[in-house]
Amino acid sequence: MDGRSLVVILLSAILLLVMVFVTRLPSTLRNTTGLLDCSPWCTSSDLKDSTRLLHVPGDDAPRHPLDPLTVRELNRVREVVKSYGPFKNSPYALHYVTLGEPEKQVVLGWKTGHPLPPRQASVLARAAGKSYDLTVDLVTGDVTTRETGRHFGSPMLTMEDMTAAAVAPLGSAEFNRTITQRGVDLADLACLPLSSGWFERKIEEKRRVMKIQCYSKKGTANFYMRPIEGLTVVIDLDTKEVIDISDEGKSIPIPKAASTEYRYSALPRSSSWSPNPISTEQPTGPSFTVDGHLVRWANWEFHLKPDSRAGVIISRAMVRDSETGEMRSVLYKGFASELFVPYMDPTDAWYFKTYMDAGEYGFGLQAMPLDPLNDCPRNAHYMDAVFNAADGTPYVRSNMICVFESYAGDIAWRHSECPITGMDIREVRPKVTLVVRMVASVANYDYIVDWVFQSDGLIRVKVGLSGIVMVKGTPYVNMNQVKQEEYLYGTLLSENVIGVIHDHYVTFYLDMDIMDGSNNSFVKVNLKKERTSPGDSPRRSYIKAVRNVAKTEKDAQIKLNLHAPSEFHVINPNNRTRVGNPVGYKIVPAGTAASLLDHDDPPQMRGAFTNNQIWVTPYNQSEQFAGGVYVYQSHGDDTLAVWSER
Amino acid sequence: MDGRSLVVILLSAILLLVMVFVTRLPSTLRNTTGLLDCSPWCTSSDLKDSTRLLHVPGDDAPRHPLDPLTVRELNRVREVVKSYGPFKNSPYALHYVTLGEPEKQVVLGWKTGHPLPPRQASVLARAAGKSYDLTVDLVTGDVTTRETGRHFGSPMLTMEDMTAAAVAPLGSAEFNRTITQRGVDLADLACLPLSSGWFERKIEEKRRVMKIQCYSKKGTANFYMRPIEGLTVVIDLDTKEVIDISDEGKSIPIPKAASTEYRYSALPRSSSWSPNPISTEQPTGPSFTVDGHLVRWANWEFHLKPDSRAGVIISRAMVRDSETGEMRSVLYKGFASELFVPYMDPTDAWYFKTYMDAGEYGFGLQAMPLDPLNDCPRNAHYMDAVFNAADGTPYVRSNMICVFESYAGDIAWRHSECPITGMDIREVRPKVTLVVRMVASVANYDYIVDWVFQSDGLIRVKVGLSGIVMVKGTPYVNMNQVKQEEYLYGTLLSENVIGVIHDHYVTFYLDMDIMDGSNNSFVKVNLKKERTSPGDSPRRSYIKAVRNVAKTEKDAQIKLNLHAPSEFHVINPNNRTRVGNPVGYKIVPAGTAASLLDHDDPPQMRGAFTNNQIWVTPYNQSEQFAGGVYVYQSHGDDTLAVWSER
Repeated sequence: MDGRSLVVILLSAILLLVMVFVTRLPSTLRNTTGLLDCSPWCTSSDLKDSTRLLHVPGDDAPRHPLDPLTVRELNRVREVVKSYGPFKNSPYALHYVTLGEPEKQVVLGWKTGHPLPPRQASVLARAAGKSYDLTVDLVTGDVTTRETGRHFGSPMLTMEDMTAAAVAPLGSAEFNRTITQRGVDLADLACLPLSSGWFERKIEEKRRVMKIQCYSKKGTANFYMRPIEGLTVVIDLDTKEVIDISDEGKSIPIPKAASTEYRYSALPRSSSWSPNPISTEQPTGPSFTVDGHLVRWANWEFHLKPDSRAGVIISRAMVRDSETGEMRSVLYKGFASELFVPYMDPTDAWYFKTYMDAGEYGFGLQAMPLDPLNDCPRNAHYMDAVFNAADGTPYVRSNMICVFESYAGDIAWRHSECPITGMDIREVRPKVTLVVRMVASVANYDYIVDWVFQSDGLIRVKVGLSGIVMVKGTPYVNMNQVKQEEYLYGTLLSENVIGVIHDHYVTFYLDMDIMDGSNNSFVKVNLKKERTSPGDSPRRSYIKAVRNVAKTEKDAQIKLNLHAPSEFHVINPNNRTRVGNPVGYKIVPAGTAASLLDHDDPPQMRGAFTNNQIWVTPYNQSEQFAGGVYVYQSHGDDTLAVWSER
Repeated sequence: MDGRSLVVILLSAILLLVMVFVTRLPSTLRNTTGLLDCSPWCTSSDLKDSTRLLHVPGDDAPRHPLDPLTVRELNRVREVVKSYGPFKNSPYALHYVTLGEPEKQVVLGWKTGHPLPPRQASVLARAAGKSYDLTVDLVTGDVTTRETGRHFGSPMLTMEDMTAAAVAPLGSAEFNRTITQRGVDLADLACLPLSSGWFERKIEEKRRVMKIQCYSKKGTANFYMRPIEGLTVVIDLDTKEVIDISDEGKSIPIPKAASTEYRYSALPRSSSWSPNPISTEQPTGPSFTVDGHLVRWANWEFHLKPDSRAGVIISRAMVRDSETGEMRSVLYKGFASELFVPYMDPTDAWYFKTYMDAGEYGFGLQAMPLDPLNDCPRNAHYMDAVFNAADGTPYVRSNMICVFESYAGDIAWRHSECPITGMDIREVRPKVTLVVRMVASVANYDYIVDWVFQSDGLIRVKVGLSGIVMVKGTPYVNMNQVKQEEYLYGTLLSENVIGVIHDHYVTFYLDMDIMDGSNNSFVKVNLKKERTSPGDSPRRSYIKAVRNVAKTEKDAQIKLNLHAPSEFHVINPNNRTRVGNPVGYKIVPAGTAASLLDHDDPPQMRGAFTNNQIWVTPYNQSEQFAGGVYVYQSHGDDTLAVWSER
């Protein structure tokens, strides 16, 4: 199949729960940019009185066709949309504003120093209870509306949706009463806005709903360990009205605060071991350069930008041909396309927890400023993001991305010669890589996303899962109270606390443009046992590699199978190596899990992109988000699985 | 099953071929120990005239029951064996001399400062064409012979076996003639001693045979790229006599030397990119201590020693209980038990390449001295090995192991709080790990074996594959010469060079003693889809974790299956957490491959330990080498698969 974009699904399921140590190195923090920094984040209410963002710094001008929208451009979008038809006379919110990227051929044809192609903004917005997919021409101010034909779901939440929803239950006397009855002071409440999923239920029809669950933060910053179990408030997100209160946990005690604190400043100094100071030093500075959004390191060049939905987007990654010295394209675009986090507890307060952390919460929106020296080493460079509040006001998320050279003491390549041949050879190349990092903190969970570039041509995408586990309250304090046949949907982690079983599926969109061409093919190399013929060889069997070029999208829906293993290559059949092999890249899925949920289960219909580990689809600029454009309360009618079946 | 030792099989199949760069940091080398250093290695002929080893340094005394044999002890072994019955009047060779470890209960009962249990040496030797498994009492000088009842196979090769075999073909006029006919000067020959495997053939019966293949080193240090293809000489290892010469490659040209050189000193400076200097700095020194062979770091303590067969052995790994402060046992013993490297080409010059790199070549014997600053970072500590030559003479392999704290700029744990709750929290613990490294260079291949300890309790074993690929000569210079239906058993890498498909299976022996007890159980946690009952939940399905304690060894032979995934725990059922769960460790196999070769194929009979990814067997001190004690030309009658079926 001449597929041109490739989506790799990889599961990262490692949970780092144990809090270990902190080392603060003797060094000053790096300076970040001089832009306004309303760290840790800004909402439109923070910005209402701020005029500073209207002062645009001198370098606030895009320099590359893929550069993200600037403060000036976002202000322009705000101005244009304000007076656009449906938005003129009703309240509205801009949920996702990003660069409307030029056509691929335009970008590929552009050369440094030439004028940029016309700048456009792509806007997902809501006005008067309806979702809009707009394109704003930043020069002419023209607005075009894309009719998607999609009827279900709504754009990702705004920060304002979440903050308003989290306090909405306090408007309900019934809610306040039940909180007080449980012995919790309203001032100690910490409530989380939880996306409701979609379950074919009436309450979800024709409105955006959100579920709120609360915790007591009394005695600990780690309120996640103190759930007010079984209490779920349903909110209408547009009106902020309380629609329903379900309370099935009155008999479940709130777990104690003791031993839950994690802040270094609040812990006794003796409680944890610290290593001696250790740091990465580059006395003559880093070997990479960042020019606007273009990063150059070793034999690599790529475009790097923040995005409020996708987090980090890598574009136009090119590697230098070691023979000709020319830059050759590898990856046109790569990013975290969607996440799916289903919890495995079907009871009332838990069944709906089937999150899509990018399309619902905004993987970039939830990326807080990185903590210099701790999130990234001393030798890191930081990049800010410019995002928009719900009313369109731009703001700066400082230090959202870091870029650094990593040296772990590892070996890139080595060989010691065996003295039998009389050669005294010991050749070692230490391993230095370039890391691009962002961290998305989606409520309790922290996803550490690393794009790692190696000078041997390898790109590795790593997702580290950190943060705090989401737990369930229980009356049990010891497993000896639990009957043999009772299933807890998780593990009793501490007194009155169950860690509920769940998965994190992270799906990456990888539009490969292998070596000077967009017409790529996907090749499955199947490893097959062959029997030898008697008398032909003392061996009875060997493994043969059989190459199959995928002819259809179906061919390229990959369910990994250990008993008939395969390798996966993306090749450019029109471009050959010196000895006549097609040039290509090998795709190695790091996670081997696919979702085991039934395909007819509503969460799995929405998360159907986890049915396979790899999918390959022909290039279509509008098909980039594996769970669809409108993921919040989606019905699964716009997923990668649907496109692939067409 | 109350299994007490656990073997995890993991496949590492990443081949780093591209030579990248070298950075030599501005620093002096660390001092190594003051012992004689006959780097890169020593054989008994090097040592014949050396008396320095008879001078034993002051600290040459074992201090822990598991400390390796010292120079003094190895000299004692040599003296004792020399006058032992079958060795008195015939030539003999000591193939594997290592500490005869005391019974586990004796080691567990020993306390620092107490006298050591009686020291013994375990010796695999050959005399007059027969293999012996001896135990030498180092105090009394008594020798006992273990009757293994094993009739096939012989001990791992000595360095002297290999060096003598590699030059043996030169004694054959026929061999010299064919080399000259191919236009190769005898002075340019580099010949490799290749273990012959076992294929039920007459030529292998009742003698140790070795196959020799040769290369031209003219014009390059990388002779591996210049095979004299199709020429195989069979040698009797005991007599060094040429038994057979097979020459089926006369028409295959020797690939050119151009562009094959890899030595940094021989390459033009401009040919590769170098990063700016980068290093790991610890201004106040490392946080670990090495006391003899005991390593202490963070909450870990373990015993570390070199071994000529296993490479590195980790023993008595214990972690500090964060609540009580007590050290609790985790791993009694762990090491690379066996490697299996089958090539997938059934033709005459390649079919036999089915190497067992530990049991045939000695994983420790092939571990060359590490290159400070390149193989390990600036802040590394080095440990020497004391091994023995074939006649028993001890020698020092300097810098065989390094230990260092690694900081890659990564995050151990972190959490940013969401400002919805009004908490301005950003807590990050940088990740520092302790790495124990050795590198075994088995001819062309370099295995980088890392044991990585984390302060959250995790132990990770990493195997990096480096070095140079073993290639096959071919008349083809371009794929356009190859007929559609012709299969090359590999990939045309360069003109006249095929990279032959092969696997590297690395099997680790892990004797887990979880948390204060040797009576452990193996638990399979199966992930199973459950349907909800209609009306019970808006969810139709969820994943349930079902725990099954393995009752038999068969239960614990694990073939990974992605469609019915499982987790694997080793628990101590007699020891519970505060809330009543059994204490345990999770075992995560890093490689998911098992061998696809037929079980009746002789190489797979010998490498049957790759039939499953995990095996669990009850503790038996004599069952530690997954391919058997005598692996060279073994018939597969003493493998893990055989023990497990019993």
